[in-house]
Amino acid sequence: MPDQPARPARPRVVIIGGGFAGIAAARALRRAKVDITLIDRTNHFIFQPLLYQVATAALAPSDITAPIRWILRSQRNAEVLLAEARDIDTARRVVRVDDDLRELPYDYLIVAPGARHHYFGRDDWEPYAPGLKAIEDASEIRRRFLLAYEKAEKTEDTIERDELLTFVIVGGGPTGVELSGAIPFIAKKALHSEFRRVDTRRTRVVMVEAGPRILPSFPEDLAQHAARDLADLGVEVRVNSMVTGLGSDGISIGTEKIRARTVFWAAGNKASPLGKLLGAPLDNAGRVKVNDDLSVPGHPEIFAIGDLATLSQDGRQVPGVCPAANQEGAFAAKSIIRDTRRQPRKKFHYFNKGDLATIGRSRAIADFGRVKFTGRLAWFLWLFVHIMYLVGFRNRLVVFIEWAYSYFTYQAGVRLITDVERYKPPASVSI
Amino acid sequence: MPDQPARPARPRVVIIGGGFAGIAAARALRRAKVDITLIDRTNHFIFQPLLYQVATAALAPSDITAPIRWILRSQRNAEVLLAEARDIDTARRVVRVDDDLRELPYDYLIVAPGARHHYFGRDDWEPYAPGLKAIEDASEIRRRFLLAYEKAEKTEDTIERDELLTFVIVGGGPTGVELSGAIPFIAKKALHSEFRRVDTRRTRVVMVEAGPRILPSFPEDLAQHAARDLADLGVEVRVNSMVTGLGSDGISIGTEKIRARTVFWAAGNKASPLGKLLGAPLDNAGRVKVNDDLSVPGHPEIFAIGDLATLSQDGRQVPGVCPAANQEGAFAAKSIIRDTRRQPRKKFHYFNKGDLATIGRSRAIADFGRVKFTGRLAWFLWLFVHIMYLVGFRNRLVVFIEWAYSYFTYQAGVRLITDVERYKPPASVSI
Repeated sequence: MPDQPARPARPRVVIIGGGFAGIAAARALRRAKVDITLIDRTNHFIFQPLLYQVATAALAPSDITAPIRWILRSQRNAEVLLAEARDIDTARRVVRVDDDLRELPYDYLIVAPGARHHYFGRDDWEPYAPGLKAIEDASEIRRRFLLAYEKAEKTEDTIERDELLTFVIVGGGPTGVELSGAIPFIAKKALHSEFRRVDTRRTRVVMVEAGPRILPSFPEDLAQHAARDLADLGVEVRVNSMVTGLGSDGISIGTEKIRARTVFWAAGNKASPLGKLLGAPLDNAGRVKVNDDLSVPGHPEIFAIGDLATLSQDGRQVPGVCPAANQEGAFAAKSIIRDTRRQPRKKFHYFNKGDLATIGRSRAIADFGRVKFTGRLAWFLWLFVHIMYLVGFRNRLVVFIEWAYSYFTYQAGVRLITDVERYKPPASVSI
Repeated sequence: MPDQPARPARPRVVIIGGGFAGIAAARALRRAKVDITLIDRTNHFIFQPLLYQVATAALAPSDITAPIRWILRSQRNAEVLLAEARDIDTARRVVRVDDDLRELPYDYLIVAPGARHHYFGRDDWEPYAPGLKAIEDASEIRRRFLLAYEKAEKTEDTIERDELLTFVIVGGGPTGVELSGAIPFIAKKALHSEFRRVDTRRTRVVMVEAGPRILPSFPEDLAQHAARDLADLGVEVRVNSMVTGLGSDGISIGTEKIRARTVFWAAGNKASPLGKLLGAPLDNAGRVKVNDDLSVPGHPEIFAIGDLATLSQDGRQVPGVCPAANQEGAFAAKSIIRDTRRQPRKKFHYFNKGDLATIGRSRAIADFGRVKFTGRLAWFLWLFVHIMYLVGFRNRLVVFIEWAYSYFTYQAGVRLITDVERYKPPASVSI
């Protein structure tokens, strides 16, 4: 609890990041006597669990996003700025934003900028294997996925065609499983009737995981079930397979080469570089090792939450999932409220409501500790949970219709290839 | 009717362009004994009349597009290639596509590549005043429209803020009227509650038209009605105002300066440069002066249709609207069918079913020759016609829900700012 300088009448709370963690913190402060400034370098919140559906052309980007301003429109103690945090001066208690390094002073700072992909020292692989964090990532994956078929239709070279029909997904976590499971369905059902020269059913999907099994955060029996589901869909699941080379023509696993024109990356996270500015110990992935009240060591007025933070509980690390980010955001907010009431802070406790992962069109696995589900029941549960949690009524209804339509018609509704390179706006327009 | 070289058993028909004209031609050939190759440099058909709704964040890009492959999926005599026409060799009867100038031979060629914006010799204005033809254009206009408010919220400079809240639309045709009419509603209703520092109701919209009145293709009384509707919405309509200067800080009309950070261009069309390759006379806008059977002078085997063609009928030029493009596409197809049956070709006749233009949230004008409507009745008619003509059931339903939602809640649902510059895909990925 920061006592010096003297606490102002209405503490200024700056929140960096409008993802699950940052939004949860802002919402939990809605009745607090504080002035909140939430900054994000984009204007939208992303419902991350469904981002892979944008990448595979099932949903539109706007179906799973909502303007951060719109989410906080009725919260009069909060303002939103489209701005990029460039520096944090913990001594002077200011965040510097944008090119002009404009200063935003704070009494409390909640740092929730999220993570990007981790290429484990091989950032030169990124152009050949985009990951999936932002809407732009999803649009890029969708573009490459759909373009591969367009190119395959045009080529006369059968070897090139096979390479174009091969998709490699690096990483066997939930994102890798969801991407891998979605591709065969679209290839075999939605695209098949539209191509004249290429047989889209010959699509090959290879999922490559460095560890001994996929979905390491799930119990072994459920992960095995998911692996069988993937195999049923035709996905080649390769475990104990560390990628050693990656380029425009495929990947290498030691001496073995898998030739593919399209590779997606779902293998790891690296926390935002903002963590380094907090002067606190970091783990290998760049995450801040926070105190058990989620504050940054040495800085009770700063909280690091969501994918920026790492914390152990009952001998296990709190996972980097949306419910944890939500709970951390709300907890950091409550610590600030307790401070203003001169109550002692509490210890954060993550409550795991259960884990869900979906595999393809109508299968999923669900882990609620003592209770576990697989198959269609788990998939309906997944559907229900995801629709219920989507921010904003409009999105819920539209997403439900898009899903119902594609479920019953075997269509992927949002197959739009746009040219991201066409516009080079002049300097006066960029922010 | 091309008699030399000898007509093959199944004539090869190449169609350049998957807009209204090209799609109509392909569909009208569905039972003909021909082999169709439709090429387009994008993978999607755009429902152009609703593109301004994407630009103003009311609809998502995927709501008004459909993959061209999907539209033609069941038409077994048609194949679709994602390719860009670079050259047409009318002597050898081949179209050359893409960087490798791969040749597509044809017996009949239907050229329907559409138009881009016409800056009347000032192409240097384009970066400061994007037009509205492609999905990328609409996304860029949406981005600039929404970013203006984000920047206004951040600035402390009241003059800069006023400039950021001023939007200039150049051109008083249907697109200019639709853009101008949509902005005030979103500014005053949807955005107002979300900004803390800027009063979005102070948005200023100026529509600038060089001619003596707006909507010159409509009867004068309807155009006057539309001008009054725009004035009611707060749009400043400036006629007889030729733009003489344009830059990042606004426009000039002679010695007068209108300071604005955001300018959109809706002032004119320039036909595709492909017209020049046909060796036929062109008009000022680069359109091919076609024969009355829509064939290109000297080339009965080549048809120029849609925005690439110009043709007079009963002393009036056939207008560059979607119904005309549709009818021209179908007519060119029928001429080919008549050739294969050794029947003489007919003369194209444009049938004008009526003209509609919408102004803002619930007003429109409708011209059916003897019958004219204005106000809410015309608007419902506009709504009905546009939903009915949307390609694909899915889009229709989703669009209807998006509209109903935004109509009753005063929200603009698709306010997504994406960073078009983030990705620079490596050479191996571009096509």
